[in-house]
Amino acid sequence: MTQSPAPQTVESAAAPVQHQAVTFPEGLALDCGAVIAPVTVAYRTYGQLDAARGNAVLICHALTGDQYVAEPHPITGKPGWWEAVVGPGKPVDTDRFFVICANVLGGCMGSTGPREMMTDAGGQTRPWGTDFPSITIRDMVRAQKLLVSHLGIPRLLAVIGGSMGGMQVLEWAATFPEMVFAAAPIATATHHSAQNIAFHEVGRAAIHSDPDWKGGRYWEDGRIPARGLSVARMVAHITYLSEQALSRKFGRRLRGASALTFLEDVFEVESYLRHQGSTFVRRFDANSYLTITRAMDYFDMAAEHGGNLAAAFRGTGTRFFVASFDSDWLFPTAESRILVRALNAAAANVSFVEIASDKGHDAFLLDEPDFHAALGGFLRGAAERAGL
Amino acid sequence: MTQSPAPQTVESAAAPVQHQAVTFPEGLALDCGAVIAPVTVAYRTYGQLDAARGNAVLICHALTGDQYVAEPHPITGKPGWWEAVVGPGKPVDTDRFFVICANVLGGCMGSTGPREMMTDAGGQTRPWGTDFPSITIRDMVRAQKLLVSHLGIPRLLAVIGGSMGGMQVLEWAATFPEMVFAAAPIATATHHSAQNIAFHEVGRAAIHSDPDWKGGRYWEDGRIPARGLSVARMVAHITYLSEQALSRKFGRRLRGASALTFLEDVFEVESYLRHQGSTFVRRFDANSYLTITRAMDYFDMAAEHGGNLAAAFRGTGTRFFVASFDSDWLFPTAESRILVRALNAAAANVSFVEIASDKGHDAFLLDEPDFHAALGGFLRGAAERAGL
Repeated sequence: MTQSPAPQTVESAAAPVQHQAVTFPEGLALDCGAVIAPVTVAYRTYGQLDAARGNAVLICHALTGDQYVAEPHPITGKPGWWEAVVGPGKPVDTDRFFVICANVLGGCMGSTGPREMMTDAGGQTRPWGTDFPSITIRDMVRAQKLLVSHLGIPRLLAVIGGSMGGMQVLEWAATFPEMVFAAAPIATATHHSAQNIAFHEVGRAAIHSDPDWKGGRYWEDGRIPARGLSVARMVAHITYLSEQALSRKFGRRLRGASALTFLEDVFEVESYLRHQGSTFVRRFDANSYLTITRAMDYFDMAAEHGGNLAAAFRGTGTRFFVASFDSDWLFPTAESRILVRALNAAAANVSFVEIASDKGHDAFLLDEPDFHAALGGFLRGAAERAGL
Repeated sequence: MTQSPAPQTVESAAAPVQHQAVTFPEGLALDCGAVIAPVTVAYRTYGQLDAARGNAVLICHALTGDQYVAEPHPITGKPGWWEAVVGPGKPVDTDRFFVICANVLGGCMGSTGPREMMTDAGGQTRPWGTDFPSITIRDMVRAQKLLVSHLGIPRLLAVIGGSMGGMQVLEWAATFPEMVFAAAPIATATHHSAQNIAFHEVGRAAIHSDPDWKGGRYWEDGRIPARGLSVARMVAHITYLSEQALSRKFGRRLRGASALTFLEDVFEVESYLRHQGSTFVRRFDANSYLTITRAMDYFDMAAEHGGNLAAAFRGTGTRFFVASFDSDWLFPTAESRILVRALNAAAANVSFVEIASDKGHDAFLLDEPDFHAALGGFLRGAAERAGL
């Protein structure tokens, strides 16, 4: 067995990126009791808001997503994460709708989060780091509500998101029902499962184990806990793919000629995962990862409503579109069915589709024509009902 | 968010344990072309070998198992890992059968492996560490063959094992068919899947990322890469349990009173996983973990036989008992069916049972009466056919 390369120290990410953002001096009161003031929400918009301010669609991003939905990413230069879905003539048609996406509270792309600066009790200015308060999915939604009101939008035509984005969609519909005409929670669940919590805990343990994490104060010497964050990304990435997708992509194909050369990264899947881990650390912040995974783990809508999930949606006028993917084992169809049953119990207007795909959880981000047709149809129908 | 405890340096394991072992000066030629000489095989036996030397049953252990099948573990003091199955009056009845279990080649409980001493080209005596050659499941079986011949046993009544133990059972049947009267590969597969390789790669990356690993030379300053090995164990442990088992054991139960205290280890499942990780490092060696996971990843019986799995068993006289568990997602029933189809194509004598259990892959180690009844029945039938 050859040795792997010695662990490398990785310097902090490239020069800071300037993000479009709005700061609210009054701040935000959190579920944990703390108040963050001021609070900043970074965001991007696509398309034009109509005169009646009625064509706004809010996109909510997933754990490691950000507000760069439909344009090149300012750090990686890669296409926007949902260009398959959002753009001119796409299912979320920016020729017709005014699309907004905000970086989540606790994120690392300009919204207030562990990487942003704060002034501590002693008057010193430094990053929040692990002093950033614990937040919930509902806190993320409250921050987005500040932005939407700031933009002068009384009601969103639709709130759409997959995975953790879908959790935000559900909190929008439960917390501000009068502001949500239509809601599309995709590849998500009403609570985070024990297995999902466990996988997150592995990622957090990997970050905590990296000496460069330094108890969260890694900014002090300009390093980042790249090894720990990379391992966290690797394990998460496996859960985003189905066994079928991994097998089709890589099978047991070897990088070299023979199985018995016994080199590092002898399987293509290993090389791919290591690449995933190492590119991720360039754009994401380890303390943000800790903060946001915790928010997902705490998510439990039934518990928030006295153990009665249907109570979260009682009397709702929102139109729901629920979608799952049959090879998604991180947020399996069974969890969407729990949501649909609760919506039915609340007499909500709900349509549900399980999409046949062998791509696993990641399918919601990929080229899935049936899913795109269903989502586009739902949104056009909602626009018609809204009189657009 | 509170900080987790600072990463701790862990000193090397407790005083070395003396294992029962036999050393073969002639050594062992490996699949990779290297020769390990001398080679030592540590083992335990239970029960009495009969006068005809016909009642021997070989148990093959899994990735992190060892030879202490049916007696307290010499390091942890816990019961043997298969006391539910092996012992007086148990399915593998030690009142009737002579049970042998060897620590696998590459292991860390007395058989030749990365933690054992070698003499290098310069005449210096030091642990093998990462200079230990890459090995295969077949190499493990060849080492066991040396032991079985040393014990004077011409033919094993049965070879039994689960998970990686099942891989060894299959290699025994394919490589030394005349020595295997009956074979019981349990919760296993004929090749390691892309997903399983990927999970192993996460564990190896976690070990490689731990500065205390020191490129594999951690023995030099008496430390062990406890943080990396612990993370590796955590992720593996999730794959051993079903979502149902995790949910039943822990659900989303909180350790404290409120979800919003936001302490470390707020969910019971996290505390459990951290405990699993930290106890594991006391008994297992990181370089052994790297070596053995690689051996599993290389396992591909069809590839070893020109792409024809049935060819591995052509003309076999061995009686097979194949068992899977319906909630096992690491070695799912579909993979046992691939084996059964190949055995059928080879006109082998094979029985197959899928056990209903919600315990996941770990079910093969646990109290599963239907499984125990089926395995015990198969073994009694084999003994009768063998004229015992």
